[in-house]
Amino acid sequence: MKKILNGTDQVVEQMVEGLVKSHADIVHRVEGTRVIARNDKRSGKVGLVSGGGSGHEPAHAGYVGRGMLSAAVCGDVFTSPTPDQIYEGIKAADQGAGVLLIVKNYTGDVMNFEMAADLADAEDIKVEQIVVDDDIAVEDSTFTTGRRGVAGTVLVHKIVGAAAEAGASLEELKALGEKVISAIKTLGVALSPCTVPEVGHPGFELGDDEIELGIGIHGEPGFTREKIMPSASLAKQLYDRIATESKLISGDKVVVLVNGMGATPLMEQYVFANDVHELLKNAGVSVEKTLVGDYMTSLEMAGLSLTILKLEDEKWVDMLKLPVETIAW
Amino acid sequence: MKKILNGTDQVVEQMVEGLVKSHADIVHRVEGTRVIARNDKRSGKVGLVSGGGSGHEPAHAGYVGRGMLSAAVCGDVFTSPTPDQIYEGIKAADQGAGVLLIVKNYTGDVMNFEMAADLADAEDIKVEQIVVDDDIAVEDSTFTTGRRGVAGTVLVHKIVGAAAEAGASLEELKALGEKVISAIKTLGVALSPCTVPEVGHPGFELGDDEIELGIGIHGEPGFTREKIMPSASLAKQLYDRIATESKLISGDKVVVLVNGMGATPLMEQYVFANDVHELLKNAGVSVEKTLVGDYMTSLEMAGLSLTILKLEDEKWVDMLKLPVETIAW
Repeated sequence: MKKILNGTDQVVEQMVEGLVKSHADIVHRVEGTRVIARNDKRSGKVGLVSGGGSGHEPAHAGYVGRGMLSAAVCGDVFTSPTPDQIYEGIKAADQGAGVLLIVKNYTGDVMNFEMAADLADAEDIKVEQIVVDDDIAVEDSTFTTGRRGVAGTVLVHKIVGAAAEAGASLEELKALGEKVISAIKTLGVALSPCTVPEVGHPGFELGDDEIELGIGIHGEPGFTREKIMPSASLAKQLYDRIATESKLISGDKVVVLVNGMGATPLMEQYVFANDVHELLKNAGVSVEKTLVGDYMTSLEMAGLSLTILKLEDEKWVDMLKLPVETIAW
Repeated sequence: MKKILNGTDQVVEQMVEGLVKSHADIVHRVEGTRVIARNDKRSGKVGLVSGGGSGHEPAHAGYVGRGMLSAAVCGDVFTSPTPDQIYEGIKAADQGAGVLLIVKNYTGDVMNFEMAADLADAEDIKVEQIVVDDDIAVEDSTFTTGRRGVAGTVLVHKIVGAAAEAGASLEELKALGEKVISAIKTLGVALSPCTVPEVGHPGFELGDDEIELGIGIHGEPGFTREKIMPSASLAKQLYDRIATESKLISGDKVVVLVNGMGATPLMEQYVFANDVHELLKNAGVSVEKTLVGDYMTSLEMAGLSLTILKLEDEKWVDMLKLPVETIAW
């Protein structure tokens, strides 16, 4: 294992320190915790808390700030944060109007965020939870009952964040979030595995010419292994499944997110994005906004995911375009 | 070679297409060229043009837009764009007040940008050129006479971009750019090589436990190969050389850029940034702004570079902080 770190047991601690020292103008660490909270005060508005295992940077700390999350809770690498840490995040986010938790669908995360919500409830902080399950690759998975929550989560952060900033209520934000989640579909592909520092070896193996379609962001198995293929063929495989699942038809409007898994050059991501745009154009589907880059990574995994948000409400695009003050959006 | 692309000869063309389709709200392609130009009109202001070989994304097209570059010219992978393409970039950038070329110091780039400036001169477009040579690793290199231009170039784009947006003259921008360049020092390290698509195999080899210090952004040799070491030791090696070269003393103010080379997780970049902050704190040097992320990559090379800008003028920080409308800043 060749990585830039000091001791595998210190990696998350030192990452959090590095992050808050580097971006003290936007975020701070809640002392004694693994919570990254926004500096900007937002009295009277609903707080938004997300988080999960580390190793997906810039998610989620990179999306904390004005117009997006109030706080992100950082677990160990690929490991859910504990309920007490999430509770600290809820307290940091609460400004009297309640707190919405945005959770990726992994069994550990869902359980721990729920326990944290119970702790908050006991202290009379109103908390609601929405669970993102955008990955259509498989039903149930290594760490998940139902579908996994992956890169589409950042679109939820942004749209719900815009509504929270505008003063929407906890109930309104929950309903909005659930509507957005149901309109987001994602599929990923891996070209190479990644290594969790404390484990020290890759989480799975792939042949020199093999790729895995439907991979999860922790290297969970997908639905097929195939030989490396042209970008256009790969785009078609991922797009066709998403289009079927989303029931996309000519005239529909969408937002596209091409998300790098960590080690995939932007050059390849843009070649792939070009192929996706061709497919959508041929299908008569209008792309209202495209995001390309490393939004939700899996350490140094090579690969990418395709997310399509079907616009059931055109205001969602405006909400995605509103400026924010975060590290990474 | 396992990459997401369609034919190695189409990779830059399709990347450019994917980029302009994805970000049509910010940039467009000058028809029939490899020039990415900003949409935003800026009549009467000096145009800024940069570019170079592709494979360093988001540099430079990601920095085109209001407050930064007017146009970026995309060469083949790791290959300078031709003079006629650069000339197209100059024409796209010119609004009557002249054009400043920001060139990384590589022999091919310097020569081709100069030839393009001559073409423009013949058409009565006033052009000046500044050459970034921030990499202190080696004097002369595989493709360079003098020192190489690397990640610090993006700080030049941003500071000079802010001044251009504010209406500075061509002469003022050239003087500012040269002053900023002389205050920027960078050193890089590679943990793994990268593969140019048309070549098909890695540009160099490193042992399983080896790293190369002083590497260039095309894999040019550095000054030493060592065994992988803790992040804190690596930070100290890079920092000490930069601090000596910059004559940093207690009380100085700096901007820090930790730049990922492509395949290095943000997690590792932040651990390293934390170590750099410790070194600067111990040296009594004040960090006024920190940037962490993949700003100037080398395809899928693993590694990072450390850039320190010594603030000879505190206004430079304000200029770095001014909002812009680009894809990647």
